[in-house]
Amino acid sequence: MSLIVQKYGGTSVGDVARIRNVASRVAACRTAGDAVVVVVSAMAGETNRLLGLAHELSPDADEREKDVLIATGEQVTVALLAIALNVAGCPALSFLGHQVRIATDSAFGKARIKSIDASRIGAALADGKVVVVAGFQGVDVKDNITTLGRGGSDTSAVALAAVLHADRCEIYTDVEGVFTSDPRLCPNARKLARISYDEMLELASLGTKVLQIRSVEFAKRYGVPLHVRSTFTETEGTWVVEEEASMEDILVSGVTYDRDEAKITLLRVPDQPGLAARVFGPIADANVSVDMIIQNASADGTTDLTFTVPQADFRRAHALVEAHARELGAAGVRTDTDVAKVSIVGLGMRSHAGVAAKMFRTLAEVGINIEMISTSEIKTSVVIAAKYVELAVRVLHDAFLGAGESS
Amino acid sequence: MSLIVQKYGGTSVGDVARIRNVASRVAACRTAGDAVVVVVSAMAGETNRLLGLAHELSPDADEREKDVLIATGEQVTVALLAIALNVAGCPALSFLGHQVRIATDSAFGKARIKSIDASRIGAALADGKVVVVAGFQGVDVKDNITTLGRGGSDTSAVALAAVLHADRCEIYTDVEGVFTSDPRLCPNARKLARISYDEMLELASLGTKVLQIRSVEFAKRYGVPLHVRSTFTETEGTWVVEEEASMEDILVSGVTYDRDEAKITLLRVPDQPGLAARVFGPIADANVSVDMIIQNASADGTTDLTFTVPQADFRRAHALVEAHARELGAAGVRTDTDVAKVSIVGLGMRSHAGVAAKMFRTLAEVGINIEMISTSEIKTSVVIAAKYVELAVRVLHDAFLGAGESS
Repeated sequence: MSLIVQKYGGTSVGDVARIRNVASRVAACRTAGDAVVVVVSAMAGETNRLLGLAHELSPDADEREKDVLIATGEQVTVALLAIALNVAGCPALSFLGHQVRIATDSAFGKARIKSIDASRIGAALADGKVVVVAGFQGVDVKDNITTLGRGGSDTSAVALAAVLHADRCEIYTDVEGVFTSDPRLCPNARKLARISYDEMLELASLGTKVLQIRSVEFAKRYGVPLHVRSTFTETEGTWVVEEEASMEDILVSGVTYDRDEAKITLLRVPDQPGLAARVFGPIADANVSVDMIIQNASADGTTDLTFTVPQADFRRAHALVEAHARELGAAGVRTDTDVAKVSIVGLGMRSHAGVAAKMFRTLAEVGINIEMISTSEIKTSVVIAAKYVELAVRVLHDAFLGAGESS
Repeated sequence: MSLIVQKYGGTSVGDVARIRNVASRVAACRTAGDAVVVVVSAMAGETNRLLGLAHELSPDADEREKDVLIATGEQVTVALLAIALNVAGCPALSFLGHQVRIATDSAFGKARIKSIDASRIGAALADGKVVVVAGFQGVDVKDNITTLGRGGSDTSAVALAAVLHADRCEIYTDVEGVFTSDPRLCPNARKLARISYDEMLELASLGTKVLQIRSVEFAKRYGVPLHVRSTFTETEGTWVVEEEASMEDILVSGVTYDRDEAKITLLRVPDQPGLAARVFGPIADANVSVDMIIQNASADGTTDLTFTVPQADFRRAHALVEAHARELGAAGVRTDTDVAKVSIVGLGMRSHAGVAAKMFRTLAEVGINIEMISTSEIKTSVVIAAKYVELAVRVLHDAFLGAGESS
C-alpha cells in the first residue's frame, strides 16, 4: 500500500461534474489499495470573483481580511469533494488549514509554511478515510488565516507529502505534463517524461506556470517525487525527481519565455562604490522585485545600469528611478516595456561547453538582437524585443530539441 | 461608553453597496463613542447557492461537510465588512467561529452553543477595534465546523452579547420590528414598541420569522435587551425585554399564523395505557417533530387521536401511522394537508378570563370552523382550514388589537 498525495487545480474542480470526476479518480486509487490525501484549489474563477468583491470595496483592501475572504474558495471545494467521495462510497473527511495546523508566518497573501501537524490526518487515514485538505491556506501563530499566494495549493500538497512521508505527490492539472516549450508557440513542443528538480525550478521561475516555484523547492528539499499530469486523461505525465546521471546528456530540457518584463536603464551614471545599493534600495523598499540586473562599466568612469521588473511594477519603479536619477549623476533614464525574456534550461549546460554560444548564434541567424543576457549554472536567459518571442522560442526549440526524444 | 452587539441579516449585507451601508452605520455608532461587536449572516441567497451545489452532488449530503460548505457564507461577509470598515477609517478585525472558540455540540446543521471564549474579542475591543464575528457557525470539541441552523446568526449575536455583558443587542433586518400581525395579511398590523421575552418566544415558535427561537431563549436567560430594527431606516424598532408590570394590561400582543401544518387522525383506536407512546415513539425515532396533539375519549372505550406535523414531514409521518394503524386496532387513518394554525399571544391571558372564548366567538361569527385547539399560559392556537387563514387573522386582529395603541 502506497500513500499518495494528489493535488487538483481550479480547472479540475471547476464545476460539480468535474468534482464528481475527481471523486471517481480518487475512489479508483483508493480501491486499488492506496491511502490518499487530496489537496484542492478553489473552483476555477472563484478566487478572482472574491477578490473582485473586495476590490469593489477598496483597491487597497486589508491584507488580513483578503485572506479570510479568499480562503473560502478552497473551503467550498474540500466540502464538495468530501460530499462527492462519500456519495461514491469512499468515506472521506475534509480538513481546513487551521484544523491540521498548517502553520505559516504572518505574511498575508504570500505566507510560507513552517510546519504541519500530521496527527489528525494520520488518524483519519488509519481509519480508512480519504483525507481532503484545503490547499493554499494556513494559520499563523495567532490563529489568523493566511494564504500562500497564487499556485499555493501546489506547495500545500508537496508540504503535506513531505510531512506524511508520502510515496509520491501527484499534481493534477489541465495540461498533460511539463513540456519542452509552450505548445501554443511551438508546435514541436513535446511532453517531458522526467525532469530534475533544479531544471523545474528554473523553468518555473522563468515563466512556466505548471508548478509554483516554492512547491518545487519543497519537493527538492524533502525528496518528494512529483508527478505532473492531466485530470482529464489517464496518460502518464511528467515526473519531477532527483537528478539522475543520464539527465546531463540532454543539453537543454526546455525553452521558456516571459512577456511580463519591462526594462529600465540609468544612462552614464558615475561608477562609484555603493551605486547599486543606492539604486535598488528604494526599489526594494517599495516591494518591487527586480529580475535581471546588468551593469557595464565604460572607459570614462561612467556606467549604464539596466534592470528589468514585472510590468505591473514598472510605473512605480520608473518613478523611483527618475526621482533619484539626478542625485546619482545619471545622464538620463531610458525605458522599454516592449521586451520579453526567452530562456533555455538544461542540466547539460554544466558539463557541455558552447550551449550559450549556440543560443546566441541561433538568434543571430534569424536577425534577433539580444538586449540583455543573464546566465546561471543550468540556464541562459536573454531579453529581446517582445515582437520576436514566438520566433525565438521556435528556432531555439528546433536548434536544441529538434525532433529527437527529450529524455 | 456602551458595548453594543449588532447583528445584520442576509438582506442587510446582500451586496457590496449594502455592506458599505452597514459599515457606515457601524462607524457612526463607533464615532458616537460606543464599542461595537458586529455579527453578520451570509449575503442573501449565498447559503442556498451553496446548498444547491451540495444538492447537485447528493440530495443526502454528509452533514459535517455541508456545515464546512455553508460556513463559508458568513466568512465571506465578515471579511468584506471588515474591509469596508477599515476603508471607512474604522479599524476592524474579523473573527470566525473557531477563532473565538464558539464551542458547540456536534449536531451538524443544528448545533447548540455551549460556550464562547471572549478573551480575544475583549482584547480587540480594548485595542479600539470594531470586532466582526461570523454568525451561524461554531466548532465542536474536535474542532469540526458546525452551524446553528436557519436564523442561527441571531443566536450567535445574543450569545456574544451575553458573554460580553453587552448593554444591548441590536438585530438589524429588512423589517422595522415586530408587528402585531403580518402586515401583508392584515392592513391594521402595527409595530410593537416593546414586547416581553415570553411573548416573543411564543410568536417565534408560532410562525413569526423575525427572530430565531433559540436567540430569544438566550436573551431571556441572560437578560439581554434585544432591539429588532431595520437596517435601511433610522426608525426605532421593537424592544424585546424582561416582562414589565404594564404588559399584562394588554390582552393580546400579536396574532400569528403558520401554514406549514398537516393533520393526521387515527380513528377510533382502543383507548389503552401506552397508546400515545406507541403512536409517537416511531415518529420521534424518525426525527419528525409533532406540533399539536389532541386526544378525545368517547364512551365506547375508543378514542380519536389527532396531531399535526410540518408539511415537509407529512409523508413520512403518514407512512409510519399507516404501518402501525392495524396493530393499534384503529378503524382507519384520516389526513388533511389543507390546514393552518392561527394563534393569539399575550401576557394578559394570564390574568384576564375569557380571552380564548372571545377568540372562538370571533371566528364563529365569520363562519370559521375550529378543528383543533391548543392553549398555553399566554397563547391560544386553533387549527382551521387553510383557506380561512387571512380572514381569521384579520378578524382576530380587529377584535383584540383594533385601532388602539399596542403598548
